[in-house]
Amino acid sequence: MTESAPTILIVGGVAGGASAAARARRMNENAEIIIFERDSYVSFANCGLPYYLGGEIQDREKLLVAKPGLFQRRFRIEVRTRHEVTAIDRAAKTITVADLDAGKTYTRSYDKLIVAPGADPLVPPIPGKDAAGVFTLRNLEDTDKIAEAMPDARHAVVVGGGYVGLETAEQFRRKGLDVALVEMQAQVMPFLDREMVEPLHRQLEYNGIRLELGNGIASIEEVNGRAVAAVLADGTRLPADLILLGVGVRPNVQLAEDAGLELGASRGIATDEFMRTNDPDIYAVGDAAEYTFGSTGAKQRVPLAGPANRTGRLAGEHAATGESRPAPAAWGTSIVRVFGTAAGISGLSLRAAKEAGFDANAVHVIANHHASYYPGAQVMAVKLVFEEGSGKVLGVQAVGGEGIDKRLDIIATLTHFKGTVHDLAELDLAYAPPFGSAKDPLHMAAFAAENHLDGLARVVQPDVDLCPYQTIDVRETHEVEALPLAGCDSVINIPLDHLRDRLGELDASKPTVVACRSGLRSYLGTRILAQHGFKEVYNLSGAAAMREFALNRRLPSVYTASTTGLPAPDAVIID
Amino acid sequence: MTESAPTILIVGGVAGGASAAARARRMNENAEIIIFERDSYVSFANCGLPYYLGGEIQDREKLLVAKPGLFQRRFRIEVRTRHEVTAIDRAAKTITVADLDAGKTYTRSYDKLIVAPGADPLVPPIPGKDAAGVFTLRNLEDTDKIAEAMPDARHAVVVGGGYVGLETAEQFRRKGLDVALVEMQAQVMPFLDREMVEPLHRQLEYNGIRLELGNGIASIEEVNGRAVAAVLADGTRLPADLILLGVGVRPNVQLAEDAGLELGASRGIATDEFMRTNDPDIYAVGDAAEYTFGSTGAKQRVPLAGPANRTGRLAGEHAATGESRPAPAAWGTSIVRVFGTAAGISGLSLRAAKEAGFDANAVHVIANHHASYYPGAQVMAVKLVFEEGSGKVLGVQAVGGEGIDKRLDIIATLTHFKGTVHDLAELDLAYAPPFGSAKDPLHMAAFAAENHLDGLARVVQPDVDLCPYQTIDVRETHEVEALPLAGCDSVINIPLDHLRDRLGELDASKPTVVACRSGLRSYLGTRILAQHGFKEVYNLSGAAAMREFALNRRLPSVYTASTTGLPAPDAVIID
Repeated sequence: MTESAPTILIVGGVAGGASAAARARRMNENAEIIIFERDSYVSFANCGLPYYLGGEIQDREKLLVAKPGLFQRRFRIEVRTRHEVTAIDRAAKTITVADLDAGKTYTRSYDKLIVAPGADPLVPPIPGKDAAGVFTLRNLEDTDKIAEAMPDARHAVVVGGGYVGLETAEQFRRKGLDVALVEMQAQVMPFLDREMVEPLHRQLEYNGIRLELGNGIASIEEVNGRAVAAVLADGTRLPADLILLGVGVRPNVQLAEDAGLELGASRGIATDEFMRTNDPDIYAVGDAAEYTFGSTGAKQRVPLAGPANRTGRLAGEHAATGESRPAPAAWGTSIVRVFGTAAGISGLSLRAAKEAGFDANAVHVIANHHASYYPGAQVMAVKLVFEEGSGKVLGVQAVGGEGIDKRLDIIATLTHFKGTVHDLAELDLAYAPPFGSAKDPLHMAAFAAENHLDGLARVVQPDVDLCPYQTIDVRETHEVEALPLAGCDSVINIPLDHLRDRLGELDASKPTVVACRSGLRSYLGTRILAQHGFKEVYNLSGAAAMREFALNRRLPSVYTASTTGLPAPDAVIID
Repeated sequence: MTESAPTILIVGGVAGGASAAARARRMNENAEIIIFERDSYVSFANCGLPYYLGGEIQDREKLLVAKPGLFQRRFRIEVRTRHEVTAIDRAAKTITVADLDAGKTYTRSYDKLIVAPGADPLVPPIPGKDAAGVFTLRNLEDTDKIAEAMPDARHAVVVGGGYVGLETAEQFRRKGLDVALVEMQAQVMPFLDREMVEPLHRQLEYNGIRLELGNGIASIEEVNGRAVAAVLADGTRLPADLILLGVGVRPNVQLAEDAGLELGASRGIATDEFMRTNDPDIYAVGDAAEYTFGSTGAKQRVPLAGPANRTGRLAGEHAATGESRPAPAAWGTSIVRVFGTAAGISGLSLRAAKEAGFDANAVHVIANHHASYYPGAQVMAVKLVFEEGSGKVLGVQAVGGEGIDKRLDIIATLTHFKGTVHDLAELDLAYAPPFGSAKDPLHMAAFAAENHLDGLARVVQPDVDLCPYQTIDVRETHEVEALPLAGCDSVINIPLDHLRDRLGELDASKPTVVACRSGLRSYLGTRILAQHGFKEVYNLSGAAAMREFALNRRLPSVYTASTTGLPAPDAVIID
C-alpha cells in the first residue's frame, strides 16, 4: 500500500497537464492532485478545433476528451477551472491562485508542481487588431466565438500559413466562405523546404483559396468597430468580415520567469531530462517548455501535442514517485492535411540541416503510395535529408495523398536510433498491393541516397543553376513540350532509350546533369553516361516538377490541370 | 568506362530475378545479361493476380510490370521466355536450357549465375485433384485459366487460409460466387496468434464466405472429369465447380540440388550474406532461397515479394561488380486485406516466440486508428510481443480497418535496430486528428508493456485459465450482460468508478485478475488494487473480446452485430 500522500498541483489542464495528473494518480493512490486551469475547460481536443469550425466534427461534446466529473470520479483528481495561478513562492512551496469567477485569491501549498501553461497566440500590433470579427484560435472559448461569427461572414482572411492557419483556411472554405491565406514567408509551412509545400499551394488554389505569399498583414480596416478588410504590406486590400490571426504563439512563461525559473535560449522554460526546471520540485511540460531536439541535440520549444502528452505523463510519474524514465528527444514530427493532400516532416529540412552546420544533402523520390497496378495509387513526393559521408538520416519530408503519415513515422523511428540511409534500405516493410510496394518509396529514397554516397549517381538539388552544366533531358519529346525543364537554353533532349545510340552528340568531358519527369529515367541515364566515360555526371533530384516547384515559378491563377502539380511517377524500378 | 564484360545469366524473371538483372545492368553497361524464364511472362505482378480475378484490377496489361521489349530497349537485357534451365554444370560454368516451344536444348556459359526459380504450389495427393475446375494460382497462365472458368462457376471452394487463399476467396465472392474457405488449422493465417485473426474470420463470414476451419480437403468429387464437390476430412461435402488449392508452396530447388548446391535446414537453397550459394559464382534469391530471419537469427525461407526484390537487387550488383552491401535480415513483415479489414505481422507471434525459446510475453491494445473525436476513426487491435526482462520487441501483430500497415512498418523499423518497448514509448510519431493520436496505439502498447515489466500492472494473456484467480470485471453492468466474460462462475462485477468504495467485498490476499472491455479500465483497476494491498494483481490483456477470440468461442453462423467483433475502445488515456 502506498504510504506517502504528497500534494501535486498542476498548472494547466490540457494535453501535458492532464496526462501528468492522470499518471500521477496511477502511481500514487494517496496523493492529493489538483489541476488549476484559467480557462473554462480542461482536457479538450485542441487539435480538433478547426475541424469543429468546418463541421467535420459536428458534436461539440466530442471535443471534451475528459471532463472534470470524470477526473473526479475515476481518478480522484480535483479540477478547478477558471482558476488562474498567478504566482509561485518557491521558498514557501505555495502557489497563489485567482478564482476568476469569485474574484478571490488564495494560496495553496505543494510538494510537487507541474507547470503546463501552454502558449498564447501572438497578435501583431497592427491597426484594427481589436475590431470585431478579428480572432485568434487557441481554446474552446475562441472556437465558440468564431463559430458564432461564421454564419454572418462571407469573406475570411487567415493570416499565417502554419498548421492552424492551413487547417482553418480549409474549414472556412468548406463552409462556403471566400478565403484568402496570407503568409509573410514565400511559402506555407516555412519549416519545410519550398518545393515540398508547392503541392499544398496548388491544392489550396485549386480549392479556391486565394494565396498571398511573401505578404504580411499591415492593418485591418474597420467600420463601426467591425473588420471589413485586411490590408497587406504591398497595399493589397482583401475584403474581410472574419479574420483569423494565426501568425504564431508566445509561450506562457511569465509565471515561471517571475518565480525565478530559468528560461532557455529558445525562451521556453529550461528543463532537465525528467522535465524538471532548475527547481527540482517544479516540472514544466508542453508548449512553454524546452525539449531536446533529436536531430541537433539543441534545446528548443516543440509546440506539438504528442511530446506534450507523453512528457506530461513522465513528469506526473516523476512527481509522484521521484523517478521515471527520462523524457525522449523530440523530432518535430508533424503533419497537416489540406483538402486531399497531406504534408509533413520529421527531423530537419535540408535548409535547416545546413543551417545547423551539417554537411547535408537530399534525394527526392516521386512514387505511388502503393503498387501502381492496383487501383487508387496516389502519387507522393518524399525528400530524404542525410549527412554526406556517414549517410545518417537527418530528416524526411513527404507530400501527397495517402500514406504520408506512415513514411514520416518510419523515419521518426529510424532517426530515434540514429539510423542511416543504409538502414533504411534494409527495412523489411509490409507489402501487399493495397498497402505498399515491394520497394517502398522510402526504399527508393534510400537507394538513391546510397547511389549518391557511393558515387554511382550523384545528385544535384532541383534548384541548381544549370548554366554551368551540359543538361540532358531524357524524357520523351511530348513530355518536354508539356513541361519544359526550367534551365539554360542549352538543355539537350534525348529520350532515355536512345541515349546509348546518341552519345556522340554529347561532350563527355563536360560536367553533366541528367533530368526527366520523376527522377527514375534520369538516374538510369546518369548510370549509362557514367559508364561511358562521362567524368562528372549528376542526376537532377526531384526532376522537372520539383525544379519547377523549387524555383517558385508559379502561375498566378488557379491550377486546373492537376490538383497538386505532382507528376505521374515512372514505373517502379528505381534504385 | 567499364572494361569487364562478364556474362550474367539469370534463372527466373519474376521479382528477384528481374531486380537482379536490372541492377546488374546499372552496375555494368558491358555485361551480357540474359534472363531465362520457363513461363510465358517475366516481371509480372504476382501479388496482383487475385485482384485481377475479382475485377479490382481490370486491365490485364497492368499486371505486366516490365515486358521483354522494355528490358531490351532500356536495359539491353535479353529475355528468353519459355526457356527452362534444366541443368547447371558448375565445373564447366554452363547451364543447359530447354527451349520449350522449339523443343530444342542448348547450353550457355556464364561467369555469374543468379538462380531465382520461385516456388510451385503444392497439390495434395487427393482423389480428383486433376479434375477440370481444380486450379492452383502462381502465375499469369494460371490466372488466365481461372478467369476463363469463373463466368460458368457458381460454387467456389478455396483450400488454404494463407495470403493467396484469403485474397482469392474475397475476389471470388466479389464476383458473386458462393465461396467456402477450407483451412486445416483452426484459424486462417496460422503464423498469427489465434485471437488476432478472429476478426478476419468474422469479416469473412459477415461477407457470406463459409468457413471450414480445422478441416482439410479429403477428395474432390468429379462428374465427367469435372469437379462438382469438395469433400472434407469430417465428411462435409461442399458443392464446388471451382476449386483453388492454396495449401502452400514447394520451393523449386531441384535444379540447385542436382547441381550440388547446398540446401539449408528449411530445404531452401543455402545462401551467405551476399546471397551466394556454396558456389561463389552462383547466387540464389526469392522463394527458393534461404534468408536470415531477424527475430531468431535462423536461416529459413521467406516467400515474400519484398525481400525477393531487394535481395535480387543486391545479388545483381554483387554478380556485376564482386561487391555489394550484405543482404538484410527478413522479419516476415506481411499484411493481408480481407474486405474492409487488414491484418498482418512483423517478427514473431507470441506462440512462435515461445517456440523459439524466448521468455516472451505480450500486451494487447484496442484503440482507434486516429483521434477518436475526429470522424472515421476505426478500431484496431495491436499485440506487441516482447522479451521479459530486456523488453526487446520480438514482433507485432495488428488487425483492423485503417492504419494497420503503418503500425507494422514502425515495428519493422524498430526491430531492425533491436529496439525495446522503451524505445517504442519514446518515438515521436506524426499526429494530427485525421492521421493518429497524441498517444498512438503503439505508444499505448509500449506503455502497457513497460507497466508489466516494471511490475506496475502485470498482464495475463487473454486465454488464461481464470479459475485459480479472483476475477473482477470492472465494466458497467450493461456491458457485462452484452458480453459476459468467459471464465469461471466467480467473476465479480464492480464498475471501475465504484471500485475504491467496494474494496471490502474483495479478498486482497488472493491472486486477482481485472478485466474490462478494451483493457484500459482494467489497467486502471489493476493500479488501484495494487496500491490497496492486493498482493498479486493482473490485467487481462486484450480484455473480454480478445478472450472470446482466443478461446475460440465462435458462433456457428454469420455474425451480424459487428463485422469484426472488435469492441469500441475506451477513451484514450491508457498508459
